Amino acid sequence: MRTQVCIIGGGPSGLLLAQLCHVAGIDAVVLERRSREHVLTRIRAGVLETGFLKLLEQAQVKTRMDTMGYPHDGTMISFENLEVRIDFKKHANTPVMVYGQTEVTRDLYDAREATGGVTLHNVDDVEIINAPLDGDALAKVRFTHDGQTKEITCDYIAGCDGFHGPSRQAIPADKRREFEKLYPFGWLGILSETPPVHHELIYANSERGFALASMRNENLSRYYIQAPLADDPEDWTDAMFWSEFKKRIPERFADQLITGPSIEKSIAPLRSFVCEPMQYGRLFLAGDSAHIVPPTGAKGLNTAASDVHYLFEALQACYLDKDPAALGLYSEKALSRVWKTQRFSWWMTKLLHRFPDTDDYELRIQRAEIEHLASIESAQAMLAINYVGLPY
Amino acid sequence: MRTQVCIIGGGPSGLLLAQLCHVAGIDAVVLERRSREHVLTRIRAGVLETGFLKLLEQAQVKTRMDTMGYPHDGTMISFENLEVRIDFKKHANTPVMVYGQTEVTRDLYDAREATGGVTLHNVDDVEIINAPLDGDALAKVRFTHDGQTKEITCDYIAGCDGFHGPSRQAIPADKRREFEKLYPFGWLGILSETPPVHHELIYANSERGFALASMRNENLSRYYIQAPLADDPEDWTDAMFWSEFKKRIPERFADQLITGPSIEKSIAPLRSFVCEPMQYGRLFLAGDSAHIVPPTGAKGLNTAASDVHYLFEALQACYLDKDPAALGLYSEKALSRVWKTQRFSWWMTKLLHRFPDTDDYELRIQRAEIEHLASIESAQAMLAINYVGLPY
Repeated sequence: MRTQVCIIGGGPSGLLLAQLCHVAGIDAVVLERRSREHVLTRIRAGVLETGFLKLLEQAQVKTRMDTMGYPHDGTMISFENLEVRIDFKKHANTPVMVYGQTEVTRDLYDAREATGGVTLHNVDDVEIINAPLDGDALAKVRFTHDGQTKEITCDYIAGCDGFHGPSRQAIPADKRREFEKLYPFGWLGILSETPPVHHELIYANSERGFALASMRNENLSRYYIQAPLADDPEDWTDAMFWSEFKKRIPERFADQLITGPSIEKSIAPLRSFVCEPMQYGRLFLAGDSAHIVPPTGAKGLNTAASDVHYLFEALQACYLDKDPAALGLYSEKALSRVWKTQRFSWWMTKLLHRFPDTDDYELRIQRAEIEHLASIESAQAMLAINYVGLPY
Repeated sequence: MRTQVCIIGGGPSGLLLAQLCHVAGIDAVVLERRSREHVLTRIRAGVLETGFLKLLEQAQVKTRMDTMGYPHDGTMISFENLEVRIDFKKHANTPVMVYGQTEVTRDLYDAREATGGVTLHNVDDVEIINAPLDGDALAKVRFTHDGQTKEITCDYIAGCDGFHGPSRQAIPADKRREFEKLYPFGWLGILSETPPVHHELIYANSERGFALASMRNENLSRYYIQAPLADDPEDWTDAMFWSEFKKRIPERFADQLITGPSIEKSIAPLRSFVCEPMQYGRLFLAGDSAHIVPPTGAKGLNTAASDVHYLFEALQACYLDKDPAALGLYSEKALSRVWKTQRFSWWMTKLLHRFPDTDDYELRIQRAEIEHLASIESAQAMLAINYVGLPY
């Protein structure tokens, strides 16, 4: 098989890139390890930056989101009973969009299906045969599919296959540098068919630890609490979860919380991770294959989208403007923004969680940071600008 | 002896409070452990916030500073060769004033002398006899002076006697809480009669550690480098200092540096410290007796001044408006601002120094923070607003 861009990974980044390529007349094939059904059952992030919305528009897959998404003009941050509202409209002149990653993925699959683009599911044993970016040799991707070994010859490979995928590993260990920070707790999350406790998200730092009140729609709430990594979600009954959650959000919200049975419950670890560079030869990493953030501030999917933006821009320059040198700048451009979102996610995480080794001095600093945020407009503006997404 | 306010400590905070009291017609006595000459040889901070200037004006001691001080409209921050200028005028609508603490102290002594106010020097063995704030009993301060034991009866005691003074210790240990953070390095500073390398301060984070280019006047430079606490300043020859300093500031400045013999050289440890509350009975702590910050961001003297503002405001309410309850609010008001300046000093210190335990991830975050600062106006505004001083 021959294509221009072989995209490894059929999650939202791979599919978004495929769709942008299609619109621009660049040929792409998508390889996905799992079935479409499996991909569409994964419950993930749900807050989209303005830049992401523009990309979806550019990819012509924004219609359903326009009807079903919820624009949020702000968010609540609390420290015990002190509340600060961050006004996105006022400080950043744009809302964010609450619309589940699962829905984005569904829209992208539907759009891809309509274009007739090739997407292979249940692909296994992916092997990347890279070639120098400046030479004539092409790259190859070998894999098994339907019980057969197959091969795609391509100009470029986009590694959109997540943290555990083969793409990053295809960069020789001595040609990449990895930066990592682990956190001594996880997020225990539940999904419940109840109305959200508040029409905006609530990020709460309480003396019992962090909690987040998020949502998918008017009758689907997504709530999280900071919990020990070793905890088994099955040991947390719904009643235990609700009781703990209510103690962590400001009283006036806790009093209004409507509880119900959880329809999903899981613990996710928190990790900060970056791989440098994000390009090697004809291989370009995008999204979780190159970097991970803790979920505080909702930057994971959004940063994957900004990678897709820079990579697509470079591919366009290469194919449409005959400027292949643009591809050589991808890694630096993407990483500059990646590190800024790493900074933001790390800051939000430090601000809002109780760390086992936080001493009394640092706890006071956490509170002072929130009081500073409550009283200084530029601090609110800085948070808002980062939350809605730094410009590409 | 009888007075309204007995001020322990004849450094800038004690003297400023005494002078403000004098102008308002409140009687005060100042007790200082050292001689006036000794106090005036101490070399300290040199960057004054707008709020401090207003206090000096209120205390009628601003004339000499108006002539001899240097208003600075901004400062440079660098990370290796990346430079960011923070524009105070643009973002905070005011400059800061470069004018040495020693000069401020001299002006305050001269003013106090002119008023005929009592200032006792070489006072020793200070003993504080406190009394409840809401009762009729008065406070007493007993001390030795001129070989005699003396006693002052007073309505209130202002503890402006620094970190090592007796005032904080006079609060029973179970009635106060202390918060502390030590830093694994110090600042090696020199004073040299050379023109400053730049007309504004340069805060530099280099891979060899932090450096600060500061100044007192057109021919008096104050330069610092981060250095191990165990170093003996005498082991640092001038040549060694200049060589190291030049490697830490951006090249274009290093090329222009004019060096000369040091006229003072010392290593100062860095410490963050807060005591809560800042009031106990008739005793009120102000300045270093209650809190210490690392020098990054120049908040030590300025925060002492903000305490003096709140304390003077409460004393005025008490004596002039017959509202003694105002004194009961002092600690909370002062501490709210104290913790914000603690946050700022801690943030600036973390941003600009190389910590022995900084890992590669955190180093990238430091750089991302500076790049974020370089590209986001509200981040610059936030720094500027904190640097020129949060409103009282």
